[in-house]
Amino acid sequence: MSAMFERLALIGLGLIGSSIAHATRRAGLANEIVGYARSPETRETAAKLGFLDRVADTAEEAVKGADCVILCVPVGAIGAVTEQIATSLAQGTILSDVGSVKASVIAQALPHMPDHAHLIPAHPLAGTEQSGPESGFAELFDNRWCIITPLPTNPPEQVARIRAFWEGLGSQVDTMDAAHHDQVLAVTSHIPHLIAYSIVGTASDLETVTKSEVVKYSASGFRDFTRIAASDPTMWRDVFLHNKEATLEVLGRVTEDLFALQRAIRWGDGDTLFKRFSETRAIRRGIVEAGQDTAHPNFGRGKPPKS
Amino acid sequence: MSAMFERLALIGLGLIGSSIAHATRRAGLANEIVGYARSPETRETAAKLGFLDRVADTAEEAVKGADCVILCVPVGAIGAVTEQIATSLAQGTILSDVGSVKASVIAQALPHMPDHAHLIPAHPLAGTEQSGPESGFAELFDNRWCIITPLPTNPPEQVARIRAFWEGLGSQVDTMDAAHHDQVLAVTSHIPHLIAYSIVGTASDLETVTKSEVVKYSASGFRDFTRIAASDPTMWRDVFLHNKEATLEVLGRVTEDLFALQRAIRWGDGDTLFKRFSETRAIRRGIVEAGQDTAHPNFGRGKPPKS
Repeated sequence: MSAMFERLALIGLGLIGSSIAHATRRAGLANEIVGYARSPETRETAAKLGFLDRVADTAEEAVKGADCVILCVPVGAIGAVTEQIATSLAQGTILSDVGSVKASVIAQALPHMPDHAHLIPAHPLAGTEQSGPESGFAELFDNRWCIITPLPTNPPEQVARIRAFWEGLGSQVDTMDAAHHDQVLAVTSHIPHLIAYSIVGTASDLETVTKSEVVKYSASGFRDFTRIAASDPTMWRDVFLHNKEATLEVLGRVTEDLFALQRAIRWGDGDTLFKRFSETRAIRRGIVEAGQDTAHPNFGRGKPPKS
Repeated sequence: MSAMFERLALIGLGLIGSSIAHATRRAGLANEIVGYARSPETRETAAKLGFLDRVADTAEEAVKGADCVILCVPVGAIGAVTEQIATSLAQGTILSDVGSVKASVIAQALPHMPDHAHLIPAHPLAGTEQSGPESGFAELFDNRWCIITPLPTNPPEQVARIRAFWEGLGSQVDTMDAAHHDQVLAVTSHIPHLIAYSIVGTASDLETVTKSEVVKYSASGFRDFTRIAASDPTMWRDVFLHNKEATLEVLGRVTEDLFALQRAIRWGDGDTLFKRFSETRAIRRGIVEAGQDTAHPNFGRGKPPKS
């Protein structure tokens, strides 16, 4: 693919920022990739790993002359970062992001946007439980969805550019409005993470079962929860602070349904349990058929080495 | 390894029963493996797949002359099956099982046990989300834990035999009392499964987000829950009916902790969220270090094919 951007600027160089750099380079989507991270250690690591053409000393310097800027920072930092770089954005620049919440990103960034630049929010549904500049890799977005939530004021040709960029990174792209995005992600991502964090915390705090027993016998189900509960705490704190309404709504439904199962257990109502447990296989099948997970048992994970 | 049993009888030929047959044969632990399943289709499939030396027409016939009998049936069927085979058990036979709940297994089976046989309950912490005789494989128990919950009346040399058998199948073996087993498994297995079943059900029932959106965007967290929510409904119904107290106790703690996080979201208490989200990484590390899960990001699962 020929370069779509003369200069791509990445603000934030964690798992997502560094992966965008790797994938941009893989596809030759930008002639120059400039990056900035707030922490000097991260900038140093990024320089050492070499996935950028240039590491800038400030965010303002990084975005200067860039025709596309992507904010890869926790959702809670979007407002401040946008304010900081706003006057340095070049004429016609696309300012995008990768935040897991979209209405709040728009609310935070829009007031600072200069008229000559385009705020086009995006969210790649991709990640791992690891974080930091060392954790990025070029294949992260391959066949994963990226959801763009354009503003009514966005010129269609600019939306098309950012769509083509994400397709170039390996993603499939959908567009929807920000409020609906936040509802969808509350269900498919935010609440699953909250519940995983919660139950892993609960299991560590019990008196009757020791933490070492939980670890030792985790392969019977628990371990699956610990993977997503190992995700970046700052990122996830910001998700819940910035998608409050949708996550509280879904969480209310989750606890309501959980109470129904609790009641079925208490009253020995096997029919209710069986019915609920039978309905869920179809969803799994659908996900595997949609190419969004492996059909191999146990995620096909390698058997752990003999100890 | 030389044969430990002259004749091993397996009652129930699903994922676990068939895997025991494969692994027994791999290690040469029995001179003859006989099996029985209630459903004629399962018996037929087992005969076709050839993982048994002989398929019996009745449970009584299967256990005749066996020096070890393992019940691989849902926990709720243990009492009836034990009653059915009790008078056919040979002198000195070990009767064991693979149930996920142990106190109930003992309570169901013990009243039917003849004096000349030994009830030694066991629980291999191994499985996949698949079920049926086609889903078994010899490596299922490799490096997984098997928990034996011996009775005070068990002769130590018979407990040692069943321990050596499970080690021969590839497992590491622990012993503990049945009540503690049921508490430990409530945390590490039963409640994680219940929550996965529940949240997958909740997500399918929402009005604001369609089922196809849930499937499509599941890679952002949700898909991990769907794997264990695809497990066998009969088996899991029985688990909750037969481990009522321990699962209700842990479930109470889970919802309590979930409400604390809900409150933190509602009040914008980022410190509480961050603190909870930071505590859980250590558990994940411990599980990986204990060899109970892969260290590869995303469980190292293969990237799904391009659609």
